[in-house]
Amino acid sequence: MAILDPAAADPARAEALDAADPLRAFRDRFAVRGPDLIYLDGNSLGRLPLESAARLRTVVEDEWGGELIRAWDHWLDLPVRVGDRLAAAVLGARPGEVVVSDSTTVNFYKLALAALDARPGRRAIVTDRANFPTDRYVLEGLARGHGREIRWIDPDPIDGPQPADVEAVLDGDVALVTLSLVNYRSAAIADMAAISTLARAAGALSLWDLSHAAGSVEVDLETAGADLAVGCTYKYLNAGPGAPAFLYVRSALQGELRNPIQGWFGQRDQFAMGPAYAPLAGIASWLTGTPTVPGVAAVEEGVRLSEEATISAIRAKAAALTTYAIELHDAWLEPLGFSVGSPRDPARRGAHVAVRHPEGRRLSQALLEERVVTDFREPDSIRLGLSPLTTSYRDVWTGLSRLRDLADR
Amino acid sequence: MAILDPAAADPARAEALDAADPLRAFRDRFAVRGPDLIYLDGNSLGRLPLESAARLRTVVEDEWGGELIRAWDHWLDLPVRVGDRLAAAVLGARPGEVVVSDSTTVNFYKLALAALDARPGRRAIVTDRANFPTDRYVLEGLARGHGREIRWIDPDPIDGPQPADVEAVLDGDVALVTLSLVNYRSAAIADMAAISTLARAAGALSLWDLSHAAGSVEVDLETAGADLAVGCTYKYLNAGPGAPAFLYVRSALQGELRNPIQGWFGQRDQFAMGPAYAPLAGIASWLTGTPTVPGVAAVEEGVRLSEEATISAIRAKAAALTTYAIELHDAWLEPLGFSVGSPRDPARRGAHVAVRHPEGRRLSQALLEERVVTDFREPDSIRLGLSPLTTSYRDVWTGLSRLRDLADR
Repeated sequence: MAILDPAAADPARAEALDAADPLRAFRDRFAVRGPDLIYLDGNSLGRLPLESAARLRTVVEDEWGGELIRAWDHWLDLPVRVGDRLAAAVLGARPGEVVVSDSTTVNFYKLALAALDARPGRRAIVTDRANFPTDRYVLEGLARGHGREIRWIDPDPIDGPQPADVEAVLDGDVALVTLSLVNYRSAAIADMAAISTLARAAGALSLWDLSHAAGSVEVDLETAGADLAVGCTYKYLNAGPGAPAFLYVRSALQGELRNPIQGWFGQRDQFAMGPAYAPLAGIASWLTGTPTVPGVAAVEEGVRLSEEATISAIRAKAAALTTYAIELHDAWLEPLGFSVGSPRDPARRGAHVAVRHPEGRRLSQALLEERVVTDFREPDSIRLGLSPLTTSYRDVWTGLSRLRDLADR
Repeated sequence: MAILDPAAADPARAEALDAADPLRAFRDRFAVRGPDLIYLDGNSLGRLPLESAARLRTVVEDEWGGELIRAWDHWLDLPVRVGDRLAAAVLGARPGEVVVSDSTTVNFYKLALAALDARPGRRAIVTDRANFPTDRYVLEGLARGHGREIRWIDPDPIDGPQPADVEAVLDGDVALVTLSLVNYRSAAIADMAAISTLARAAGALSLWDLSHAAGSVEVDLETAGADLAVGCTYKYLNAGPGAPAFLYVRSALQGELRNPIQGWFGQRDQFAMGPAYAPLAGIASWLTGTPTVPGVAAVEEGVRLSEEATISAIRAKAAALTTYAIELHDAWLEPLGFSVGSPRDPARRGAHVAVRHPEGRRLSQALLEERVVTDFREPDSIRLGLSPLTTSYRDVWTGLSRLRDLADR
């Protein structure tokens, strides 16, 4: 890779990489106020696209304010329409397999419970101890409430769960295998195709959390043979704080699985308000209550940007940005007692890099004073979220040089 | 009542009522574009408060756009803070009993399932066939998934469920009694205190849907002895399409009931991301995933207006507006084959009035062409939603005169 250059720590190198970046123009499509704030936390909350700010004003002031209830004529199909767009541009899924709805947590609950209901004779759920907390907590509640047990796997904290780790605990008693595609701490990418195939061969369903993957790495749900997935839109999809999440149900399973939260937005002929629940055909049956209209509109704007940039270009830049950050780590931080908490092979790594230091928490806090935003994850990881549409190589250089100076003092 | 005047159909009467309306200034705090649109559907989607439009711009453009992830420092307590404000101003509940979260449907699911889990030996759920569809559909799913049965009561379609209707089906096998405080079609108000007391005496829990009540009638959860409640914020609380809903858990029950959707926003020391779910104390344990930040902020703005107007003044105007609409109905519409589908006693009626006509659907559609927005509910009800902060007596006069002219043609 060109950027594996011994002169990587030269700031001119960052300028050159920015100049050659095919996605560099996208940064101007976001609210970026002044060059002094170095924002390396787009993996927690992506920046505001200028088109989203305009769209939200339209939705609030013209549609809600002016059209009022009549706007439901075009709001009603938003969750499925935006889901289709997300499916095609970001998730490698087919039309009618993805819908925008609720939070990641609620969607995860719906799909995990539906999977357990579809495998009534099986008692076990397989997941990993380093999985994202909300997934683990939801599973704990489901296991207790539905007489199931969790088989925890304990993967390597940097490399994450491997197919062999899953294979070792799979048997005919497993109903559900659920993992994150990109680990929230280390950014390790799991082998979705191999693990989904193992799960299916054992008669279990697979459920993937794509929160740290959607909009940062190539996801091909169809080809990988994933059964179910959920994910977040306010990270790399830049849809804003608490924007609604998405869920995916493989079309072949849509006749078999059933949404356990039977709400009126999943009902056929909703406004007939009929006596019994008769779900809509297809992915819309996974809707529950009234969708957050401005939130779904913001998801559409976020997806539009990823669509335009293309996920393959986004993914290439994520690999290059994280490789560059690791080079700077090796040059500047390793001598100061840091280590890399992410896979070194860019093919196995999402769009963030964890750098570990025993004083990580204090350093991440102190970085804020230096106008560098990162976040800290227990026990010792500073996460550098490098959002391909908005993070420049110069940001990486500046952020890591400030971290170096801080650690050096 | 002064407005029970034989000259009610005189437009000067409407002008006089508006001039004497203590809430008339509130209309100017909302986006009302031109006098020609007569909006009688605030019970489906309340109008946009101007302060909400400004607040949403601030949340999106300054907080998300400028503060980015650092804004969580003040976003994190929004759901509980706005819940407390709603509790005090609108719901007659105590601090720490209400939180803003998810949709009404998802909240209803969480509370209904928690109630069933808290009464494991009891098989029955009591509700009424005219209850709001999403509540009925959720209950149907819970009954099927958890081996329970629904005991349907069939109340009078205008007067709604009475304590005696509930009493007739209550016994030691009932886990949960759940009804709407204000019926979505007829606007009948149920006797929350009497029914909650009956439920408790039978060892069951009571769960109230306040969607059509919150911000339109006085609700006193504490005094009524209600155990649990949910409700919508985008109707009379004017928080916008799909804004997050609220839920209430009586403080005495908070140690006993448990949120079945164990998400990371309900977790103590959330960002420690610890190995096991250990819920927050109190009402925050009923949060699930990441809250919709702009939505919760819009709820705060909506609640602020109700707080300022006071619910007693709002309730008095709702009674007067609906009484006026019924007078106009009697003068103009009854002779054309209409009837009133709501209680005639204003003390037993919320802020909307159903007028019934065999051609109701066609008339409601045709009214839209006349720039009068109402909605239609099967089989024959045109609902006139008279939102006390934004509907004028002149709106009621104009809307009903256009309906009369239409029906007369």
